[in-house]
Amino acid sequence: MTALVQFLDWFGIAVFAATGALIASRKQMDIFGFALLGTATGVGGGTIRDVLLGNLPVFWVHQPAYVLVCVAVSTLVFFSAHIPESRYRLLLWFDAAGLALFATIGAEKGLEAGTGPVVAVFMGIITATFGGIIRDVLGGEVPLILRKEIYVTAALLGAATFIAALHIGLPRSLALASGFFACFALRALALRYGWSLPPYRARAAGDVENDGTP
Amino acid sequence: MTALVQFLDWFGIAVFAATGALIASRKQMDIFGFALLGTATGVGGGTIRDVLLGNLPVFWVHQPAYVLVCVAVSTLVFFSAHIPESRYRLLLWFDAAGLALFATIGAEKGLEAGTGPVVAVFMGIITATFGGIIRDVLGGEVPLILRKEIYVTAALLGAATFIAALHIGLPRSLALASGFFACFALRALALRYGWSLPPYRARAAGDVENDGTP
Amino acid sequence: MTALVQFLDWFGIAVFAATGALIASRKQMDIFGFALLGTATGVGGGTIRDVLLGNLPVFWVHQPAYVLVCVAVSTLVFFSAHIPESRYRLLLWFDAAGLALFATIGAEKGLEAGTGPVVAVFMGIITATFGGIIRDVLGGEVPLILRKEIYVTAALLGAATFIAALHIGLPRSLALASGFFACFALRALALRYGWSLPPYRARAAGDVENDGTP
Repeated sequence: MTALVQFLDWFGIAVFAATGALIASRKQMDIFGFALLGTATGVGGGTIRDVLLGNLPVFWVHQPAYVLVCVAVSTLVFFSAHIPESRYRLLLWFDAAGLALFATIGAEKGLEAGTGPVVAVFMGIITATFGGIIRDVLGGEVPLILRKEIYVTAALLGAATFIAALHIGLPRSLALASGFFACFALRALALRYGWSLPPYRARAAGDVENDGTP
Repeated sequence: MTALVQFLDWFGIAVFAATGALIASRKQMDIFGFALLGTATGVGGGTIRDVLLGNLPVFWVHQPAYVLVCVAVSTLVFFSAHIPESRYRLLLWFDAAGLALFATIGAEKGLEAGTGPVVAVFMGIITATFGGIIRDVLGGEVPLILRKEIYVTAALLGAATFIAALHIGLPRSLALASGFFACFALRALALRYGWSLPPYRARAAGDVENDGTP
Repeated sequence: MTALVQFLDWFGIAVFAATGALIASRKQMDIFGFALLGTATGVGGGTIRDVLLGNLPVFWVHQPAYVLVCVAVSTLVFFSAHIPESRYRLLLWFDAAGLALFATIGAEKGLEAGTGPVVAVFMGIITATFGGIIRDVLGGEVPLILRKEIYVTAALLGAATFIAALHIGLPRSLALASGFFACFALRALALRYGWSLPPYRARAAGDVENDGTP
């Protein structure tokens, strides 16, 4: 069981590292810039989770392999001559896979640390979204959570599905798989068809542009 | 006594959650975006304080009520049809209340952890300002600390007043109240009358716009 | 020996505090804004390092002198009437000194905490770059790591040189000095002559500007 979580964790780290490297490619950084952005994105979400839970030193401090995998993935992206034209599109798909993995694993790690279900779900959302937030802040991009297509909602669905599946008695591996697929499917549909939830809209006369902001 | 600190802490978390939700409304996020931004803003300052002091896991990990209050406040903001036109103005006032609460409580928690007065004041400033900084970074806004009206100064005044009041022997509840009112009053005056301290000004021939920046 | 690391640490904190204050001067902040930005920048990198390694509370919590030095440096910058015209240029040189100091000390602290060489190097890079990243995020500036001239690479060279020098048996003080000079020299040459590594370039038909981003 732990082996499965372990594997998914590695996979999530690798795909998030790839999204960091893709942002580095948009900014035309050099190879070590790729490595830093890829590594910070790959280990970022799990690092924040470990800090909040008090699992210190954080997971990669005594395991260089995590850092090396991120560096390897980033280097691979740097030397990929024929990256598809729409790199941002590719990034969104990798990000979706990472989001689904980390929403589920984050909730699982929360439970392991003894949190209740509500906090475990929140921990899943934090783990899933903050790697990407670190990437977007370091890379000077607009955070993905601000885009219109369903994003936070998918992370919530994945984490909540995992917790619910455990509660109805599914074995942990099936619960993890359910959480992953629920999140990934919703995010994939949102990316493919531009799905979004109804946003907040000002209903008074006041409009969004002109509301007293400098 | 602890009950008072507890109450003020809840109140600060709720008003900061409201400011996060107000930023979410400016960005027309969906309801779960509101919940994430509200919760991250509400618990952000105290989370950073707990991490710096080594109070881990952080305060909300074993207390889902903190997260639930933030989600409830954010939902309330989402469904408030008649939010005043000038949402940003409302945000500034909520933020002022949160600033005053957290500057005082942050300094108190610093003292509890055994820091000296200087570090306790700094801890108050960090607790008061970093929730808002997380909000502004996640929401893609210019950080409030960069605006011209007195802001960091008010947090400093609140934390320092609290520490000074304790040193001259006031009971803790009065000291907390003094700190809160000192900070809130200064920030309120600054908001109402546009007060600011003299800013740094280039005094050489060089000007600010044209100083070799790319 | 510890005395040398201690001294370099103080020096690094002071020069980084100065860069924070210089950003505050670009934004025309008031004196307490200078103090907050200077202090957050000065202690930021080391704080993140301590958190990741689990050295809590972080180093400045029981040592007000660190905070006071940052406040003093920031105040000095605030009242320096004849700051050279090109403040941004000055900032870059201070930042280079801080980068070289923290890349080396960060790697040293990693080793002290029992990490292997790879993670120690990564820890050096994190310590060296994240103070500046906090400064640039708080100050609303484009992060320095996104500029074209060699930056992350210099931090990597400094940390790796230090580790390599230890491995070939140099005494710790010489190893520290080698790491510092390797990083500083490379960054200085990059600043002086605009050196950069070959960046990633799209090699397919797709171009950087037009890649599906919103």
